[in-house]
Amino acid sequence: PLDGDTLLRQIRALGEIGADQESGGRTRIALTDAEKAGRDQLVRWMQELDLLVQVDQIGNIFGTLPAANVGADARPLMLGSHIDTVKNAGALDGCYGVLAGLAVVRAFRQAGVLPPRPITVAAFSNEEGVRYQPDMMGSLVHAGGLPLQAALDSIGTDGTRLGDELLRIGYAGELAAGSIVPHEYLELHIEQGPVLEAEGVQIGAVANLQGISWQQLTIQGKANHAGTTPMHLRHDAGFAAAAIVTFVRQLAAQSGTTLATVGSLHFEPDLINVIPRKAVLSVDLRDPDESRLQAAEQALRDYLALLEQQEQVRIHSERLARFEPVPFAEPLVAEVEHAAAARGLSCRRMTSGAGHDAQMMARIAPAAMIFVPSHGGISHNPREHTDDAQLLQGAQVLLDVVLKRLFA
Amino acid sequence: PLDGDTLLRQIRALGEIGADQESGGRTRIALTDAEKAGRDQLVRWMQELDLLVQVDQIGNIFGTLPAANVGADARPLMLGSHIDTVKNAGALDGCYGVLAGLAVVRAFRQAGVLPPRPITVAAFSNEEGVRYQPDMMGSLVHAGGLPLQAALDSIGTDGTRLGDELLRIGYAGELAAGSIVPHEYLELHIEQGPVLEAEGVQIGAVANLQGISWQQLTIQGKANHAGTTPMHLRHDAGFAAAAIVTFVRQLAAQSGTTLATVGSLHFEPDLINVIPRKAVLSVDLRDPDESRLQAAEQALRDYLALLEQQEQVRIHSERLARFEPVPFAEPLVAEVEHAAAARGLSCRRMTSGAGHDAQMMARIAPAAMIFVPSHGGISHNPREHTDDAQLLQGAQVLLDVVLKRLFA
Ligand SMILES: NC(=O)NCCC(=O)O
Ligand SMILES: NC(=O)NCCC(=O)O
Repeated sequence: PLDGDTLLRQIRALGEIGADQESGGRTRIALTDAEKAGRDQLVRWMQELDLLVQVDQIGNIFGTLPAANVGADARPLMLGSHIDTVKNAGALDGCYGVLAGLAVVRAFRQAGVLPPRPITVAAFSNEEGVRYQPDMMGSLVHAGGLPLQAALDSIGTDGTRLGDELLRIGYAGELAAGSIVPHEYLELHIEQGPVLEAEGVQIGAVANLQGISWQQLTIQGKANHAGTTPMHLRHDAGFAAAAIVTFVRQLAAQSGTTLATVGSLHFEPDLINVIPRKAVLSVDLRDPDESRLQAAEQALRDYLALLEQQEQVRIHSERLARFEPVPFAEPLVAEVEHAAAARGLSCRRMTSGAGHDAQMMARIAPAAMIFVPSHGGISHNPREHTDDAQLLQGAQVLLDVVLKRLFA
Repeated sequence: PLDGDTLLRQIRALGEIGADQESGGRTRIALTDAEKAGRDQLVRWMQELDLLVQVDQIGNIFGTLPAANVGADARPLMLGSHIDTVKNAGALDGCYGVLAGLAVVRAFRQAGVLPPRPITVAAFSNEEGVRYQPDMMGSLVHAGGLPLQAALDSIGTDGTRLGDELLRIGYAGELAAGSIVPHEYLELHIEQGPVLEAEGVQIGAVANLQGISWQQLTIQGKANHAGTTPMHLRHDAGFAAAAIVTFVRQLAAQSGTTLATVGSLHFEPDLINVIPRKAVLSVDLRDPDESRLQAAEQALRDYLALLEQQEQVRIHSERLARFEPVPFAEPLVAEVEHAAAARGLSCRRMTSGAGHDAQMMARIAPAAMIFVPSHGGISHNPREHTDDAQLLQGAQVLLDVVLKRLFA
C-alpha cells in the first residue's frame, strides 16, 4: 500500500527549496547552496526511514533498506534519479523518481517487512549538467564512463572546480565511486515530452533511450562592410551558420526519426552592418537507431565540407557529448507493461527522447524506466506539470514492479 | 600646390589618438574622451590655419576660410566628413576627408590667396553611430532630417545621454544647428569596398549612394526540450531566424543589385538542448534603386508572413533606419571625372555602398564624393589601408575640383 500523501507532500516540500516566488520555479543547480539544502532534506528523510545513508566520492547519495537476511547476493535493487535542477525548473524532473523510491521503501517500513535483497534509493549528482558538463555526470562516473578525477576536475561555467564545490557543501563522500553495483535499476520520471498526453496514455514503458550527439561548430569567415562588399565576394560566417540550421532541420524532416536542434548560436562581431567574421553554434542530433544517428552525423559532415567550399569559410567541429542509443532490459520493460495492465492503466512502449541516469546505469545493470505524462510536454520550466493522480499511478506501478522483481 | 607631407603627417598624428598598440587600431567613439582629444587636435590645426572655428549645437565642427570680399553669396563651398571612429578602426575612414579639406585650405593660405566664396571644412558628429543611433547623425541634424532635441536625447548603448556627453567634453556649441547652408558639398573618402582596387582604377567619381533599409526582427516561438519534442510540433524561433538569413541571401543573389546582410543574431535561452523561445536579428538591405529596394522589403515581408504560418511563430519588425538612394549632383560628378582625366588618373563612376555624411548634405546642397581605393576592400578594421600615393592623388583631385568650382 503506497503512502501517496507523504509522496506528494515531499515533492512539494523539496520543490520549495530554491524556489523563486515570482517565476513559480525553483533553482537548485548542482553543488550550489540551494542544492545542498535539497540534499540535506533528502538525507533527513532517508534517516527517518532508518536507511543506511552513504555518499560516494562524486557526491551521489544512496539510502539503503537492508535485506531480510544476508543472502548470497547483496546487490541491491536500485531506484534512482536526481534532485539537482536547471535554472527556474519544475518540481518533478528528477525529484519525482527519487521520492517515489523513498515511497517504495516506506511501504516496506510501514508493512514491517524487509525485502529479500537490499533496496537502494539513489540521487545522482549533477544530472542536468547546467554548471559542469557533461550532464548525467554522477551516474556516468558510477557506471565507469568517466574517470572520477576528470569529473572532480571539471571547471564550471562560473569558474569553480567541481571537487572544491563538493567539499564546500560537505558532500565529498568516502564511498568509492561505482562500488554499489545494482542487481537491477529502475527510474520513474515525467516524460518531458508530449506523446503520452497527446495519446491519452497513462504509463510509458520506456523500452529504449535514443542516442545523443552534441557538437559545437565554430565557423571562421571574414568580417567586412555590409554596404560595400558584393554578395559573391563574401565569406559570411553568419550565413554559413544559418545554412547549417536549415540543413539539419531538413535532415530531420527527411529522416523521420532523427531529431535535430540548434539551440545556441553566436555571431562576432554581431553588428548590424558588419558581415560576421565568426559564428559559433551547437548541434544536437538524436536518433533511437545508432546507424541512423551516424548517418545523420555523416550527412552533416558532408554538408559542412560543401559549405566550406561554397562560402570559403573554415568550420571546426568539437564533440561535446556522444551517447549511443540504449536498449533497456526487456524483462523489466515487460514487467512495467504487466504492472500497468494489472492496475487497469493504459500503457505504451516508448523511446525516451531525453537523457537520463538510467541510460548510464544500463551499462552496468539491467535497467528500465517508467514515464508518466507531462502536461503540454513542457519541462525545464516552472509550467512543468503532471496531475497528482498520474504521479500516484506512476509510483504505484514502480512499487508493483519492485514487488514482482523481488518476490516473483 | 598641395602640401602632401603635412596631410600625411596629420593623418598619422590623428591616427595616434585613441590608438591601441596591440591591435594596431584606434578607438575614438563619438563623444568619448578619446574623441574629444581628436576634436581638440583638429581645432588646433584649424586655428593654425587661422580659420573661423565654430561648433554647433550637435557638436559639428566647422573651420571657415573667409572669402576675398564680402560678396552677395556668402554660402561656403563645404568640404566635410567625420573624425569619430568605430571600435578598433583604421586611420583613414572619415579623417582622410576632413584633413584633405584642411590641405585644400592650406594651399590657399600658402599661396596667400583668398577664394571668391568661403571654404568651410566640416567634421560632423557621430557619423559611425556606434554608441548613439542613427549613424551620420551630425549631418542628418544639419540637413534637417532629425530634430536637434531628439538627437540630444539619444540614449547610448552605455546608458549615457548624447547631450550630456557633448556638454561633458565641451563640444555643445552655440551655433544653431543647420545654420551653415553650403553652396556645394564635396566629400573625399576611402572606398571601403573592393571595386577600385579590383579594377585597377585610381579615382572613383561617386555618382550616387544606395538606399539603406535597416530593421530588427523579433521572433517569438516556444521553448521546449530538444530531445523530446517531435519536429512537427516545434515553434522554433531559432530555425525561423536562420530561414530568414538564408532567404535574404537568396533574395540578394536573385536580384543582382540588392545587398542583404544579417550581422546580428541572438537566441533565447541559448542552450544546447532547448529549442529557442526567442530570436532577435538585424536585416540590412541596400539597393541603388528605390523601387528595387522596396521590392526587396516587400519580398521579405511576404516571406515573414509565410514563415509565421509555417512555423507558427510571431514575428515583429522594427525599423532602425531607412534612407532612400541619393543621386549626387551631375555637374559635380562630371567635374571629378574631368579633374582625374586632367591629371592622367584612371577614373570610373560608381555607387557608394556605405552611408556617408554626403548622403545627408545632398538634401540641402548639390553634393558629390570622391573615392580612392581601399586595399582588399577592408574597412572598420586596423588593416584598413590605402597607399600614400593614392591618398595624395585623391586630395589633389579634391583641390582641382575646388579650384574649378570656385574659379571657373
Ligand atoms: N532529462 C533531461 O532533461 N536530461 C538532459 C539531457 C538531455 O538533453 O536529454
Ligand atoms: N561609411 C560608413 O561606414 N558608414 C556606416 C553606415 C553604413 O553604411 O553602414
